[in-house]
Amino acid sequence: MATAGKVIKCKAAVIWEPDKAFSIEEVEVAPPKSHEIRVKMVATGICRTDDHVWKGVFPNIDYPVIGGHEGAGIVESIGPEVTCVKPGDKVIPLCVPQCGQCDCCLSPKANCCLKSHIYKAFQSLMPDGTSRFTCRGKQIHHFLWISTFSEYTVMPEASIVRIDDDAPLDKVCLFGCGFSTGYGAAINCAKVEPGSSCAIFGLGGVGLSVIMGCKAAGASRIIGIDINKDKFMKAKELGATECICPQDFEKPIHEVLVQKTGLGVDYTFEVIGRIDTEVSALASSHLGHGICVLVGAPPAKSQLSFDPALLLTGRKLLGCLIGGWKLKDALPKLVLDYMKHKFNTDALISHVLPFEKISEGFELLLSGKSIRCVLLF
Amino acid sequence: MATAGKVIKCKAAVIWEPDKAFSIEEVEVAPPKSHEIRVKMVATGICRTDDHVWKGVFPNIDYPVIGGHEGAGIVESIGPEVTCVKPGDKVIPLCVPQCGQCDCCLSPKANCCLKSHIYKAFQSLMPDGTSRFTCRGKQIHHFLWISTFSEYTVMPEASIVRIDDDAPLDKVCLFGCGFSTGYGAAINCAKVEPGSSCAIFGLGGVGLSVIMGCKAAGASRIIGIDINKDKFMKAKELGATECICPQDFEKPIHEVLVQKTGLGVDYTFEVIGRIDTEVSALASSHLGHGICVLVGAPPAKSQLSFDPALLLTGRKLLGCLIGGWKLKDALPKLVLDYMKHKFNTDALISHVLPFEKISEGFELLLSGKSIRCVLLF
Repeated sequence: MATAGKVIKCKAAVIWEPDKAFSIEEVEVAPPKSHEIRVKMVATGICRTDDHVWKGVFPNIDYPVIGGHEGAGIVESIGPEVTCVKPGDKVIPLCVPQCGQCDCCLSPKANCCLKSHIYKAFQSLMPDGTSRFTCRGKQIHHFLWISTFSEYTVMPEASIVRIDDDAPLDKVCLFGCGFSTGYGAAINCAKVEPGSSCAIFGLGGVGLSVIMGCKAAGASRIIGIDINKDKFMKAKELGATECICPQDFEKPIHEVLVQKTGLGVDYTFEVIGRIDTEVSALASSHLGHGICVLVGAPPAKSQLSFDPALLLTGRKLLGCLIGGWKLKDALPKLVLDYMKHKFNTDALISHVLPFEKISEGFELLLSGKSIRCVLLF
Repeated sequence: MATAGKVIKCKAAVIWEPDKAFSIEEVEVAPPKSHEIRVKMVATGICRTDDHVWKGVFPNIDYPVIGGHEGAGIVESIGPEVTCVKPGDKVIPLCVPQCGQCDCCLSPKANCCLKSHIYKAFQSLMPDGTSRFTCRGKQIHHFLWISTFSEYTVMPEASIVRIDDDAPLDKVCLFGCGFSTGYGAAINCAKVEPGSSCAIFGLGGVGLSVIMGCKAAGASRIIGIDINKDKFMKAKELGATECICPQDFEKPIHEVLVQKTGLGVDYTFEVIGRIDTEVSALASSHLGHGICVLVGAPPAKSQLSFDPALLLTGRKLLGCLIGGWKLKDALPKLVLDYMKHKFNTDALISHVLPFEKISEGFELLLSGKSIRCVLLF
């Protein structure tokens, strides 16, 4: 393309300081270096984790920063030695990389690539320790190496995957985080079995994706839990067999769930990222073989505290990163499955806004009015 | 036998009050009622859990009580409607029953029989709500329905299993708790894979049994951890490839283990029942796919507290009851495997004492001098 090798000026949402409003700025995006790709973003979702970045409670973030990690776009240009994609390819940036070479990537049992932000806290800059973003003469930091809240963004090879040429980018952007995280938590992490019971704490976009995963796995009873009853209709549309609001009961919600199911729910999922609901989800699970999956990411330095006797009878407490998927391997197939109508992720998209209205999108998320809001560039 | 249907007077170790010395008393043992069996005990091990009963920190114990839960004996007489054993059979009392009818017994994934003490706290008395023990005119309570610290003891059908006629009772008494708990934690709960790394926190009888399980499963690296280096020789004899003492390092033991293994140990086992070592065991496990099994039983009402970010990368925290075995199904086979020399549990027996010296046996346990002390009647 004509822009290849040149600095591109474009719009991006910059967070100058934690908890300050998003600022739509003109930024300069440098060309990709060796093993890097520059992508023209087409669509990006807004995820709860982006709110953590905004508020300053996500671990190891440097400011000013361009956030965003759930997007889809088209390769604008590639740096030297890039072989995995070419200009014009449709791609999804990976919020957890898959370098293909580290011990976790080589293990069939792990997906926490050692180049991920979680393992090494240097993704505020590109792998070479510099940034591709500047604005008003200042260096702007990257987020998870992908920063999808920019019209153009640069990422390393480990953090990108090509998807089908016919994939609708304004829809499959959700596969970059929310849908994959929830769906995989049920399919890969909990390994939900047919005929089982499931309970999902938190019915946002990820929680609803857990429901879709539980339904796809053949669960016969899927209980949605949220304090916002406005979420119930969509949850039932996507597979919940019943929905309950903790505030409708005098007793703690875990007691309600145990009473409903006899000995507890076969699989429980915490999709909020709160310590109190994590303990509730564990206590709600079947005493003899319950599996509780922690999907939500609590604020940095939280402390989960419970009586270990809860585990003694045979419960299991599992963590889950991006649904347990190795994203480079998984996303192209998930996108194809979507195109074959195996699941209806479109139902998760409640709002579509132009990118400039990103602050409105966050308001919709925080007020509980949106499920997923997709921003279009 | 001549004693059938009659009250038997015999010796037993009575705990009159928590934390008071064991008192060897003459007790009266009533005949078994319907669906009950009276057993003449031949041998009983001393387990750390018995110390919890003695000290008064085991949940839901009523005093005075006759403790003990790791024994082997011979059926003296049976009550009406008992079909699973007959007088003269060699048997092991089950510290976790297997009623065969509850949801957990019917599930292939659970072993926490709903008649267990953990689920229903009424095992201080027989199922009909009365005791078979009296002493000096007072009713004495049962422990886990089996009370092996008595020359004769009564148990319900759910809590007994027949074993091979040729089994040496002074040896296989360990299968009633310690060996099965540890060995099964590795085999059934963690499902240790060949070539993997394992770390065992606590090298008492159960911890050594975990080592035997890890070795049997083909683990290539088995790291024993204890503050008492006197335990190391036996641990290595039974399969540990190395042993370390936390006090030999300036940094926390989980950092030592992560450094030794790169990303953490594939499988870690906490076999002490301490909150701090439970967190260490979790933090020592592989960040991407580590499995941490809690085997030790902490005192009642403990609170385990850790940063849930430890789980986020893919770790799993598992509880484990009596090694995950359904004891009625498992023990006869484990005893046969022992008789075929598949594992050498004799190596766990460091001391043998006459039953009357039970207090000496507890002293050996608490001073760290014994592994398993077996008391003979």
